[in-house]
Amino acid sequence: MPEARRDVDRLAAGVLAGDRLELARAITLVESELPEHRELAERLVEAALPGARPSLRVGVSGPPGVGKSTLIDALGRHVVDGGRSLAVLAVDPSSHVTGGSVLGDKTRMSRLAASSRSFIRPSPSRGVLGGIARRTREVIALCEAAGFDAVFVETVGVGQSEHEAAGLVDSFIVLVAPGSGDELQGMKRGILEVADVVAVNKADGIDRERAEQAAVGLSNALGLFSRTAGAGATPVLILSALEERGVSELWSAVETFVAGAKSRGAYAERRSRDRLAWFRGELERALRERFLAAPGVGEKLGELEGLVAAGGVAPSRAVRELLG
Amino acid sequence: MPEARRDVDRLAAGVLAGDRLELARAITLVESELPEHRELAERLVEAALPGARPSLRVGVSGPPGVGKSTLIDALGRHVVDGGRSLAVLAVDPSSHVTGGSVLGDKTRMSRLAASSRSFIRPSPSRGVLGGIARRTREVIALCEAAGFDAVFVETVGVGQSEHEAAGLVDSFIVLVAPGSGDELQGMKRGILEVADVVAVNKADGIDRERAEQAAVGLSNALGLFSRTAGAGATPVLILSALEERGVSELWSAVETFVAGAKSRGAYAERRSRDRLAWFRGELERALRERFLAAPGVGEKLGELEGLVAAGGVAPSRAVRELLG
Repeated sequence: MPEARRDVDRLAAGVLAGDRLELARAITLVESELPEHRELAERLVEAALPGARPSLRVGVSGPPGVGKSTLIDALGRHVVDGGRSLAVLAVDPSSHVTGGSVLGDKTRMSRLAASSRSFIRPSPSRGVLGGIARRTREVIALCEAAGFDAVFVETVGVGQSEHEAAGLVDSFIVLVAPGSGDELQGMKRGILEVADVVAVNKADGIDRERAEQAAVGLSNALGLFSRTAGAGATPVLILSALEERGVSELWSAVETFVAGAKSRGAYAERRSRDRLAWFRGELERALRERFLAAPGVGEKLGELEGLVAAGGVAPSRAVRELLG
Repeated sequence: MPEARRDVDRLAAGVLAGDRLELARAITLVESELPEHRELAERLVEAALPGARPSLRVGVSGPPGVGKSTLIDALGRHVVDGGRSLAVLAVDPSSHVTGGSVLGDKTRMSRLAASSRSFIRPSPSRGVLGGIARRTREVIALCEAAGFDAVFVETVGVGQSEHEAAGLVDSFIVLVAPGSGDELQGMKRGILEVADVVAVNKADGIDRERAEQAAVGLSNALGLFSRTAGAGATPVLILSALEERGVSELWSAVETFVAGAKSRGAYAERRSRDRLAWFRGELERALRERFLAAPGVGEKLGELEGLVAAGGVAPSRAVRELLG
């Protein structure tokens, strides 16, 4: 972990040169929660950003156990076999309550990890909604500075943060399990709102027919609502990540979506909007942190939140009391 | 418009006594955008809040032209005919680009307006997403202080603010037009995520069959995803607000939903969460306003936002520049 500004500048140079080891160290700095690392991390990102070349950013989301890692392994190999370099930012599954392996992402995506064109980076999710977005933006910037052609971002689709997760990428794939009803109960409706491409996984063996039925149901449901003008209905595909069927079709759907977004101007707009959201989030956070750093404010806030939630104090009075 | 604190205290007493005229004046004060009215408005809400009795809060949302006013007129009469008093906070349709009448809400809901137990209040929407929630919370508090048994909040379901709008009320009705595909294209998917009850309106005349088909499609789509544990599938009803068919069934669905939420504890939780969201929103706003009040900050912010959106400046650097 670099301790000084000079080290950070060297680190940035290493990232810009495409050095994988330096990139890994840079990401560790950005993900550090030590307050003294924050200034250095910002310096690092600022140094790397001007050299960042836009990659094709793809989000892969879905409930635990749906097969995101297996899909990323297969889709990622499709991408690197086509000659592109790929960085994968994977949520660490061991930190989740349900499902997931404890073997680590490189094991989960062993075949992709074997490619010299791939870089796989597990990220601790820490369970903080929205917290993922903050650091992920910086990590994406570092990967783009390191010259990757594509960046995959894996998120677990169970939170309210899906809007933000979708905003981070150029195309957001939502992976669902076959079957209707019970199997999908764990999935939040909101995630469909932000899906650019929906894929029903595990269309293999005895589940194949159920996957087809689920795809028809989802397609009908999605057909009722258009996300953005001109974007058309959200494509729903079926695939088997395990048997590697439907993987190249999924990649085509992603590329078609992004090409369409580029021609409509929606691609550039989505990136601008995300940069502004990033800035505003950082600004609000900085204002709040500056405010909370004043002596006694933190305890007072907790106390007032309890009173407000219970209905005992009007919010405006609580704010005045806190600011006074 | 009261100019002094003493007047505000008199106004609060009038609201608490259930005086309609004083309530209308109080709402005008709360909705005023003059900075000098804000302190008085807060004082008013704070004086009224301890006397507020929880009403049954019902949100009615849907795209322009779907028949929200006609439904509220019919549903509202069902409520007041049952002996309850009802306040309706209606979005002013004349301020919208598409659809809506220019005749004002009392004309749109003429039969409900004729009841002595009803109070109808149009609110200018000003087109600011999220801005509705801020003032609406205060106006709901005033209506509850005035003793209304039920409060209806009409919102136009085209924005990103649906999550917040649904959080304001105990039960959120989403009204959709019959037919599938084209007619629903203007509707955002996200609104279904927050619907507690979905109603397909205009199930009359030649549209009846199409309404039934739409209800089946929506029901299938909604059945795939559960919003909250224990809440069950979202009910989908068909009705004709014009012919007043299905209106009492809709009211039963609302009451069933709220009773279920109360027994699960979800009702109290939703209210606490909304009060906390209100407080946090006010706090962030206050911090931002205090910050933006410093000389030169506003212009600097606009300039930096432009640079950040274009990708020319790293967000963290822009924040530091702004705070420095």
